[in-house]
Amino acid sequence: ESMNLENSLKIIEKAEKKAKEIGRPVCIAVVDAGGGLIAFHRMDNALPVSVELAINKAFTAVMLKMETSRLSQLARPDGELYGINTACGGRIVTFGGGIPVFFGKRLAGGIGVSGGTVGEDENIAKAGLSAITNSGR
Amino acid sequence: ESMNLENSLKIIEKAEKKAKEIGRPVCIAVVDAGGGLIAFHRMDNALPVSVELAINKAFTAVMLKMETSRLSQLARPDGELYGINTACGGRIVTFGGGIPVFFGKRLAGGIGVSGGTVGEDENIAKAGLSAITNSGR
Amino acid sequence: ESMNLENSLKIIEKAEKKAKEIGRPVCIAVVDAGGGLIAFHRMDNALPVSVELAINKAFTAVMLKMETSRLSQLARPDGELYGINTACGGRIVTFGGGIPVFFGKRLAGGIGVSGGTVGEDENIAKAGLSAITNSGR
Amino acid sequence: ESMNLENSLKIIEKAEKKAKEIGRPVCIAVVDAGGGLIAFHRMDNALPVSVELAINKAFTAVMLKMETSRLSQLARPDGELYGINTACGGRIVTFGGGIPVFFGKRLAGGIGVSGGTVGEDENIAKAGLSAITNSGR
Repeated sequence: ESMNLENSLKIIEKAEKKAKEIGRPVCIAVVDAGGGLIAFHRMDNALPVSVELAINKAFTAVMLKMETSRLSQLARPDGELYGINTACGGRIVTFGGGIPVFFGKRLAGGIGVSGGTVGEDENIAKAGLSAITNSGR
Repeated sequence: ESMNLENSLKIIEKAEKKAKEIGRPVCIAVVDAGGGLIAFHRMDNALPVSVELAINKAFTAVMLKMETSRLSQLARPDGELYGINTACGGRIVTFGGGIPVFFGKRLAGGIGVSGGTVGEDENIAKAGLSAITNSGR
Repeated sequence: ESMNLENSLKIIEKAEKKAKEIGRPVCIAVVDAGGGLIAFHRMDNALPVSVELAINKAFTAVMLKMETSRLSQLARPDGELYGINTACGGRIVTFGGGIPVFFGKRLAGGIGVSGGTVGEDENIAKAGLSAITNSGR
Repeated sequence: ESMNLENSLKIIEKAEKKAKEIGRPVCIAVVDAGGGLIAFHRMDNALPVSVELAINKAFTAVMLKMETSRLSQLARPDGELYGINTACGGRIVTFGGGIPVFFGKRLAGGIGVSGGTVGEDENIAKAGLSAITNSGR
């Protein structure tokens, strides 16, 4: 089993619902295990920069198999991955809002959210993830 | 009035329906009047290259306010716009599947489809467009 | 209503007047709500780097819907958006001189100024903005 | 003597007047002898792609000290400069609308116009040039 359009739209639907509760228009992206985009929705009035950031947060979460929030420490001048933000043609995002999706132990894809504070983005991404992990998939 | 998430998802829904009729999995992208992505869906088993091509066809249709199919003539070595394909960081696509969306005379956005033959992509894009132009919008 | 050439030249004219008062030759750029350039003037003897910086400050103010001066805190190693400077192909500028333009609550465009100190650039940009906000537009 | 903001705005004013006569909204760019932008105006409703093309046509005219229309032959598969369009980070434009500005025999800058047919763009650029060459500068 792997990420597909159906899964991805469930994630986006749940994330959008959360974003509306918070009152924050965001961009939401879902990518597959190779980092390729499966689905993307921009809610009306989201920040222009969030189009790219949401897609790249999802991409980053896959590339490094970790939540992008972890990179905010790792990418600092005294961190282990200082300079990582210019890898992959500059697509690596070093702040929260990107989370990997695992099916069991296997990397299946990533979710990226941008448009709110970093904390809001993370909560929205996790709400999205819950759409497929809490449903007895 | 302008392109928004609601409009864009109607376009994608109709385009997807057409793609299923033809039996061709495609990527479908909708962008706003500035070329910024609003919504994107990749149908399962679509060509990997189509992620980028669908987005860039929609972008190209906006940038040049024309169907991308017209560029296949204009961008030839003896055409008026030979070399245009390297503009905009290489994002200009010079074959069919991208169409602009006008609200009256005003450019409102673009639709891009990739995954089938060029003719199929164009038909699917036009089916998508009909979702908002035939409905008395 | 949106940003157009007429609006943009009023902004530039007022900004240039301010820059002359200060005795500082600068570059001034005005972009639309998608970040696309509408007008740009380089005063004689402005810093060569300011051509790019003025355009990218205006672009950044639109992309993030905020004054670029706010990014100098947010983009620090301990800031919430550390690493943002490499987004958008490296076009994000993380110091002052870029300001967004709103018509009511709607983002309409951005103004970018470069050539003086950061404080001078900001003052010149704000003088430019006053050309359209103080006129009962 | 060299290109400055005053010269450049005269060129743009004259070019804009010509563009209005033809009824074609265009982008007009003027660069200095190093290819650096001095002034740029986008007339309302110009093609989105023309922002970049006008700037790069002016740049190309300076880089190669020739009208960009000459490149449409030189850059063809059987031409002497086949492949030139990817030089300078992809900024070289291989169709008409960019012209160099000479003061006597010395290269002083370039003018780039985009938004109409190639023939229209060239005529508008030449009208712009006439603002400084016919005036007994």
